[in-house]
Amino acid sequence: MRTNLPLDADRLWADVMALADITDPARPYTRRSFTALFLEGRAWLAQRFAEAGLTNGVDAAGNLIGRIEGNNPALGVIAIGSHSDTVPSGGRFDGMAGVATGLEIVRALHDSGTGLEHTIEIIDFLAEEPSEYGLSCVGSRGMTGSLDEKMLALTEPAGEMLRDALRRVGGDPDRLNRAKRDDIRAFLELHIEQGIVLESRALDVGVVTSIVGIRRIEIVFQGEADHAGTTPMNLRHDALIAAADMVVSVRRIAEELAAEGPDYFVATVGILTVDPSASNIVPGRCRLVIDARTTDPALTARFVDTIDRESAAHAAGARVTRASFQTLSDVPPVACDSNLRAALRQGAHDLGLGEMDLPSGAGHDAAFMSRICPSAMVFVPCRKGKSHAPEEWADREAIAAGAAVIYQAVKALDQSLPRNQTQGAA
Amino acid sequence: MRTNLPLDADRLWADVMALADITDPARPYTRRSFTALFLEGRAWLAQRFAEAGLTNGVDAAGNLIGRIEGNNPALGVIAIGSHSDTVPSGGRFDGMAGVATGLEIVRALHDSGTGLEHTIEIIDFLAEEPSEYGLSCVGSRGMTGSLDEKMLALTEPAGEMLRDALRRVGGDPDRLNRAKRDDIRAFLELHIEQGIVLESRALDVGVVTSIVGIRRIEIVFQGEADHAGTTPMNLRHDALIAAADMVVSVRRIAEELAAEGPDYFVATVGILTVDPSASNIVPGRCRLVIDARTTDPALTARFVDTIDRESAAHAAGARVTRASFQTLSDVPPVACDSNLRAALRQGAHDLGLGEMDLPSGAGHDAAFMSRICPSAMVFVPCRKGKSHAPEEWADREAIAAGAAVIYQAVKALDQSLPRNQTQGAA
Repeated sequence: MRTNLPLDADRLWADVMALADITDPARPYTRRSFTALFLEGRAWLAQRFAEAGLTNGVDAAGNLIGRIEGNNPALGVIAIGSHSDTVPSGGRFDGMAGVATGLEIVRALHDSGTGLEHTIEIIDFLAEEPSEYGLSCVGSRGMTGSLDEKMLALTEPAGEMLRDALRRVGGDPDRLNRAKRDDIRAFLELHIEQGIVLESRALDVGVVTSIVGIRRIEIVFQGEADHAGTTPMNLRHDALIAAADMVVSVRRIAEELAAEGPDYFVATVGILTVDPSASNIVPGRCRLVIDARTTDPALTARFVDTIDRESAAHAAGARVTRASFQTLSDVPPVACDSNLRAALRQGAHDLGLGEMDLPSGAGHDAAFMSRICPSAMVFVPCRKGKSHAPEEWADREAIAAGAAVIYQAVKALDQSLPRNQTQGAA
Repeated sequence: MRTNLPLDADRLWADVMALADITDPARPYTRRSFTALFLEGRAWLAQRFAEAGLTNGVDAAGNLIGRIEGNNPALGVIAIGSHSDTVPSGGRFDGMAGVATGLEIVRALHDSGTGLEHTIEIIDFLAEEPSEYGLSCVGSRGMTGSLDEKMLALTEPAGEMLRDALRRVGGDPDRLNRAKRDDIRAFLELHIEQGIVLESRALDVGVVTSIVGIRRIEIVFQGEADHAGTTPMNLRHDALIAAADMVVSVRRIAEELAAEGPDYFVATVGILTVDPSASNIVPGRCRLVIDARTTDPALTARFVDTIDRESAAHAAGARVTRASFQTLSDVPPVACDSNLRAALRQGAHDLGLGEMDLPSGAGHDAAFMSRICPSAMVFVPCRKGKSHAPEEWADREAIAAGAAVIYQAVKALDQSLPRNQTQGAA
C-alpha cells in the first residue's frame, strides 16, 4: 500500500470516530434514522460541511446535502456520498466512512488548490438501513423518484407514518418531485466490503461490478391468543408454530438455491415478532420479515413462489390464517457504470494500490442512484468481514486508500465526463 | 340459577368494570404489574377497601391487603383474594373478579349485620401473571416463603432487578420474612374457569380439586449477528434457526405427552425474542420461554429431559451455542383442601346452584397459599373459555353466584374451622 496519499488520513479518521461517538450509550453503535441521535449526528455533519466551505441543506427526500459550486456549474454535479444512520447495535464505518470520504475529498481539493469544473455534492442519504417503517434507502429512493405514496404510508410500531417522520427530519413528502435530480453526472460511494474477499487477498480496494437485488417479504400468521394452561394442544391456533415452520422453510430453500451456483443467493428471517409475547399465552399473531438477495432475479422469483406455497401450507397445518404475504420492497440487481469503474481502477493504479473487481452482496444507495446517473462504488477491506455489529472495523489506512482512489477518479472524471449529455443511466 | 343471592351483584359488577377502565388505552385490557397503571389500579382498590371499613396496606411481598378484625382475633384469619394485574392485552375478569368478590363479601356481611369471629382479609396478590422479570405469583410466593434471592435478582429487559421493582411498589425485599404468614386458617379464591367445561354443562360453579404444576424454562441460543447480504448460507451462525427448530420440538413432544392420557399435559413457547431484530442482520441471539403444565410431575420430568437433549442438538445443527437452559420457576401440582371444598359445595347446595368438581389447568395464587394454609377455589363459567384476551367475558350473575358460594362458605367456616390448630396445610 502507498502511504503518500493525496489526502489526510488522520483528518478523515477523526471524522469517522467523532460521529461514532454520537451513539446510544447503552447500545453502541446505534444511531437509528429519524431519532434525536440521528439528528444530532446530522447537526454535527452540517457543521463540518460548513467548515469545509460547503453550503448545505436537507432536500425534500430528507437527504443532507453539502455543495460547492464548480467553475462551470452548467456541467452538472459529481456526487459522493453514503449514509450516517446505523442498524441497531451496528458499527462505526458502515455508511459513515463514505460520507466522511466526500468531506475529506473536498478539503483535500481545497488544500491542493484544485478547482473543479463540476459542482461537487456530498450526500448523506436518509435511512439507508432498514428503518422502523419497514423500508431502507428512503433518501436515495426519494432522490431517484422511487419513493411512492404506499411507502410513505408505512408506519412504525407506535403508529407514526413514514410521511410524517420524513417531515420531522426536514423533508417534504408533499413535494418529493423537488428531490428528484437530473443534473448529477456521476455518483461515487465508498463503503466497507462487509465480506472477507479483500482481506483474504490482501488487496487495498474493490471496484464493485454489480449490487445484489434485494426483495423483502412480510408474512403475518394470525391465530388465537388462548390461555397456555387451559387450552389443550389439539384445540390450539398457535401462530408461532406456523412461523417456526416458515423459518425452517426459508433456510432450506435458500440453502438449495445457493448450492445451485454460480449466482449468489442468500435469504434471512431477521425479524420475527410474537404477539402478545407472554409465557402463559398461546401466540396469537406472528410477523416475519424475509430478506432475499441475489445477482439473478430468476432465483428470487423461484424463492418467492416456493415460500408463498409453503407458508400457506404451514398456516393450514397450524390451524391459523396467513393474514399477510406481501412484498415490502423489491430492488433489482444493478451493474455499476463501466466508465466510472474504469476511472476508479485507473485511480488505484496511479496510486500504486492493489485492486480487484467484485460484486456487492449488500444493497447500497448507489443501486438507486444508478437509476438517474452513472454510479460506481469502491469497497475497502474490513476485519473478518464483520459489519452490522459493534466489532465492525476498518483500518485508518484502508479507508484513506479507498478515499484517495475516489479523489483521483473525481479529478479525472471532472475532465473526462461527457459534456453534452443531459442525463446518464447506468 | 337462584337470583336471590345474599350479596349485591350490581355492586360487585361495578367494581370489576371500574377497575377494567384503568387500562392502557391503546391495548385494553392491560394493567401490567409494577407499572404506573397497576399502582393507579391499586390506589383505586385501596380507596374501595377504606370505604368498606377495611384497614389496608402493602406487605413486604408487595401484596395489597385489606383487613377487618374479627370478634375473636386470636382465631386467626380467613383470607379471600386474587390479583389485579393482567397479561398484555388481557381481560377484565382474570384476577379482578376474585379481588372484587372479597370486597363484596365484606360489604354484604356488614349490610346483613353479620359479625364474624375470625378476622377477614382481602388480598390483592402482587404480579400473579408472568411479570417482565420472568416470574409469576410474586406476591403469593412472598407470602408463603417461596420468593428466594435468586428470584429477586431476576431483571426485566431494561435491567431493573425484581428486588428494586418490589421496593418501588411498596414491598420490602430485605424483610420478606415479615410477609410470611402463619395466622391464616383458610384461603378462598374465586376465578373465571378459563376453560369451557362449566359453560358446556350449564353449571353455575366449579369447585377446584387440584391445580396443575407449572414449569417455566428459558433457553437462549447465541450465534453471530452477521450481515444478511454478505454472509453465505453455509457460513452462518443463525440463532433463530435453532430457536425455530426448538418451537417445532416443543409442539411435537407436548402433543405426544398429551395424547398418552389420562393426565393433563400442555406446553407452550409464548415468548421468542430475536436480537438484534433487523431484516438485514442474521439473528445473533434468541431467547425462548417454555411453559409446561401437568397434573403429573413425572410428565414434566420426561418433557424437560427431552427438550434438554433436543435443544443441544438444535444448537449444534445451527452452529450456535446454547447459552442458557434454565428453570425460571417450578410450581408442583397441588390438591385443594377437602374441608374447604366441602364448605364450598355445601354453600352452592344451600343457594340452589349447580356445581361440579374440576381440575384447574391454570396456575393460581391458591397453589402457593396451600403451602401455608388450607386453600380452595371456586371457578365461574366464562364465555367460550376465552381468557388472557380482550374478549374474555363472564356474566354478572355468574360472578355473583360464585361470590355468594364463597360468602356462604366463609360464614360456615367461621364456625366450623378447627380452633386449636396453629397452622393448617393443604
